Amino acid sequence: MDRRDFLHGAATGAAALAIGRHTRALEISPKDDVIAKIAGQHDQTVKMLQDWIALPSIAAENRGYPQGAEYMARLARDAGFQRVDLIQTKGKPGVFATLDAGAPNWIGIYFMYDVKQFDPAEWSSPPLEARLVDKPGLGKVIVGRGATNTKGPQVACLAALHAFKAAGVKPPVNIALVCEGEEEIGSPNFPQIVFKPEVEAALKKCLGVIIPLGSQALDGSVEINLGAKGVVELELVSSGEKWGRGPQHDVHSSLEAQLDSPSWHLIQALNTLVTADGHTPAVAGFFDKVRPLSARQKQILEAAIPKRNEVQTKKALGVDRWFKNESFHDSLVRLVTQPTINIEGLVGGYTGPGGKTILPHRAVAKIDLRLVPDMTAKGTLDLLKQHLAKHGFADIEVNMSGGYDPTETDPDSKLVKAQTAAYRAQGVDPLLWPRLAGSWPGVTFTGAPLKLPAGQFGMGHGDGAHAPDEYWIIESANPKVAGMDGAVRSYVEFLYACAT
Amino acid sequence: MDRRDFLHGAATGAAALAIGRHTRALEISPKDDVIAKIAGQHDQTVKMLQDWIALPSIAAENRGYPQGAEYMARLARDAGFQRVDLIQTKGKPGVFATLDAGAPNWIGIYFMYDVKQFDPAEWSSPPLEARLVDKPGLGKVIVGRGATNTKGPQVACLAALHAFKAAGVKPPVNIALVCEGEEEIGSPNFPQIVFKPEVEAALKKCLGVIIPLGSQALDGSVEINLGAKGVVELELVSSGEKWGRGPQHDVHSSLEAQLDSPSWHLIQALNTLVTADGHTPAVAGFFDKVRPLSARQKQILEAAIPKRNEVQTKKALGVDRWFKNESFHDSLVRLVTQPTINIEGLVGGYTGPGGKTILPHRAVAKIDLRLVPDMTAKGTLDLLKQHLAKHGFADIEVNMSGGYDPTETDPDSKLVKAQTAAYRAQGVDPLLWPRLAGSWPGVTFTGAPLKLPAGQFGMGHGDGAHAPDEYWIIESANPKVAGMDGAVRSYVEFLYACAT
Repeated sequence: MDRRDFLHGAATGAAALAIGRHTRALEISPKDDVIAKIAGQHDQTVKMLQDWIALPSIAAENRGYPQGAEYMARLARDAGFQRVDLIQTKGKPGVFATLDAGAPNWIGIYFMYDVKQFDPAEWSSPPLEARLVDKPGLGKVIVGRGATNTKGPQVACLAALHAFKAAGVKPPVNIALVCEGEEEIGSPNFPQIVFKPEVEAALKKCLGVIIPLGSQALDGSVEINLGAKGVVELELVSSGEKWGRGPQHDVHSSLEAQLDSPSWHLIQALNTLVTADGHTPAVAGFFDKVRPLSARQKQILEAAIPKRNEVQTKKALGVDRWFKNESFHDSLVRLVTQPTINIEGLVGGYTGPGGKTILPHRAVAKIDLRLVPDMTAKGTLDLLKQHLAKHGFADIEVNMSGGYDPTETDPDSKLVKAQTAAYRAQGVDPLLWPRLAGSWPGVTFTGAPLKLPAGQFGMGHGDGAHAPDEYWIIESANPKVAGMDGAVRSYVEFLYACAT
Repeated sequence: MDRRDFLHGAATGAAALAIGRHTRALEISPKDDVIAKIAGQHDQTVKMLQDWIALPSIAAENRGYPQGAEYMARLARDAGFQRVDLIQTKGKPGVFATLDAGAPNWIGIYFMYDVKQFDPAEWSSPPLEARLVDKPGLGKVIVGRGATNTKGPQVACLAALHAFKAAGVKPPVNIALVCEGEEEIGSPNFPQIVFKPEVEAALKKCLGVIIPLGSQALDGSVEINLGAKGVVELELVSSGEKWGRGPQHDVHSSLEAQLDSPSWHLIQALNTLVTADGHTPAVAGFFDKVRPLSARQKQILEAAIPKRNEVQTKKALGVDRWFKNESFHDSLVRLVTQPTINIEGLVGGYTGPGGKTILPHRAVAKIDLRLVPDMTAKGTLDLLKQHLAKHGFADIEVNMSGGYDPTETDPDSKLVKAQTAAYRAQGVDPLLWPRLAGSWPGVTFTGAPLKLPAGQFGMGHGDGAHAPDEYWIIESANPKVAGMDGAVRSYVEFLYACAT
């Protein structure tokens, strides 16, 4: 019961009597005070999100730096962090901030202030305008780049701290905030932020680290991910220059008769990367380090699978069938346990409308590899390079742009217990899920030397990460799904759960 | 000897005496009168080319229509064509024009008024500005889209007719001019122009058809092509929608674990199209209709190969070695005799800078096929479709955007004799070459029902067709290579050669 419910009840005589009889049970706690502030600052919270969406930082396009970091620092200061430092790296700057409430416990929070690229032509409303739109069945949402990934959830987290300030209540736990601006290019410089001595020292004191995320599905259910796959993003570049065969600039396509083609060379190289099923990685040694799920992980997975909705999932993805026509169960086991080689993009020669009779001197495949424990980003990249060399493609450049190792968190850790308690405080019984198929640089926290529990946390819902019309629910049509205020409250609950 | 040389000679007493002794041989013919006009109209000719380059028609981008056709019609009228008709087609309009000089013979001339797409960022001067630039070793050139392919040569041809007008001399042969605006997309509607009854009737009277082209190499040598390969341009499109597997819109790349990928599907399909050498077409039946060179064609080819310059060719193409490390001789035999499957472009998913973690729902390969006799565009397209279906890729769309059959012309035809005579009149002994590896819609003339000889003709030199910094020589640094005026003269010579 939050304070608004209490005050509403107090307006009736019967409730007033009831209060008289149970004074101790209904005493207004500091937490209630904080929660009571959320509704009143709703418009300000929405505006905070809209203003932030208007200022995108996109590392792949070198857009919005260092402004994005400076803005992030301002947001942290406004939310009550006493110490806020910009951390320079070899790439884009990060931000480190601490809020020392004099509490016994520390919690780490990870933010990314960057967002994915976008093409406004593909959007139904301008991606930086963060328009409030009525979305049938969902409620009122904000449509914009970064709305759900992850400015919406991050603003909810900051708004929780604003609510503490407004209520004049100290947070029950101290907070170490680490922010980076290169998550969408694979966090190549994140360790430079985390392992700065003062940052590492602060994180060492933490019981774990969360990244704010709208974790609710459309039915209101929530999963706690006990880890995430690792990732390597890279480009494979085939060129006449490096190959020493074919042309070194684009030439007329008729000359293909007497020349080798860097494009065919790339196609042949790519074709060796997966087996005949067009899916299973065929890079030698790719599966050698794959550790099977533990009995505990299997149990957690099998308990969770029946609660997933196949029809809803297929509809959301625009999918008729799973790989190999597998059952939903088997496809989910695959999702959790299998490493992948994915083609993000193909770019070669002429890419405009119609055709152009050239033999291109260069062709590129944009690839991502998803890794499961105990694969490593570096080890897998090496395997790929060895594989290409062995198959006669040593000339093909393998340009890694970013990536990190997989991450795992103990289901019995204090962090997972706090996450669980916070969700339950809002009436949701979270489902444990053994491993997110997506990736985040959690290994920086879960790996040596910090070895902290780490994971996603937060009520609320959004969709369209990396896609057009990305959205985040502000006012939810479904009472089981939190809107912005419910998401804000989840961070208040979480901070209290961390204090115990 | 042209008229300028004569007049120059006449200025010396000794020459005047010589003239007295050889009056008949040095009599000024009407042809001399015409040729004498060329130098005087030089600036006007250059301006005609610059003005035309400034107005590009690009069918793939639907740019410059119907203005390009209307401009073409004006150019024809200005050059003295009495009848000039715009011919509507299902695509872009064509132009048909006749210049009836009351002569016994007719010659057909083919123009394309369209040009290839361009990206100004890749050019050293604006591609529509047609700047006069000093090009070391070459002389003064015009840099612009269409400069050599083929507005430069076409302007030279038109300027020849202006010279007739200026000299008050009737052309010695009647001319039927057919123009299209879709050559660069494979001339999908050209037969609708050629086989309009009045156009077909005019062409039937012609001894053959030429397309103006700067045919000189940098050493001044000239080839007469006795045919050209055919071409099919097409897109192969792999999509979740058509395949019924994988996503129907782009989704997060982590989902590749449980989903099929239309991009991998395309890679696998492409990989079946060539053999392990990454070059030789592997489509079943692709070589069935390939007719070996005749003894006469072989003889022509073997006579011509030693006159080609390997070092120069490699340098121009940016190439270190030929396919299979073959000798120049063998690679040229291959160039003439082998059909090809070339990748013009690859476009799938995310194509911008850096990466983007998506699993794309669609991937496209832009392909061209080059055909030799007796392959046909339609037959080869059918083979490709059958091949894809047989290998499990029936869902991949094969969208042909244009193309035509190969073409051949008899080396003993009147047209080839006229071409040869015209080149010799300018001191160049042309080399017969059995087959151009590039393509042009000559089959519309050489095939049934017209069955006319057809080929390229013209002095002069340019390069960079379909590439940045395309150029056409205006004033040549090498006396063996014609500049614009020499190119103009070649059309005067050609028209006279057609009259005999």
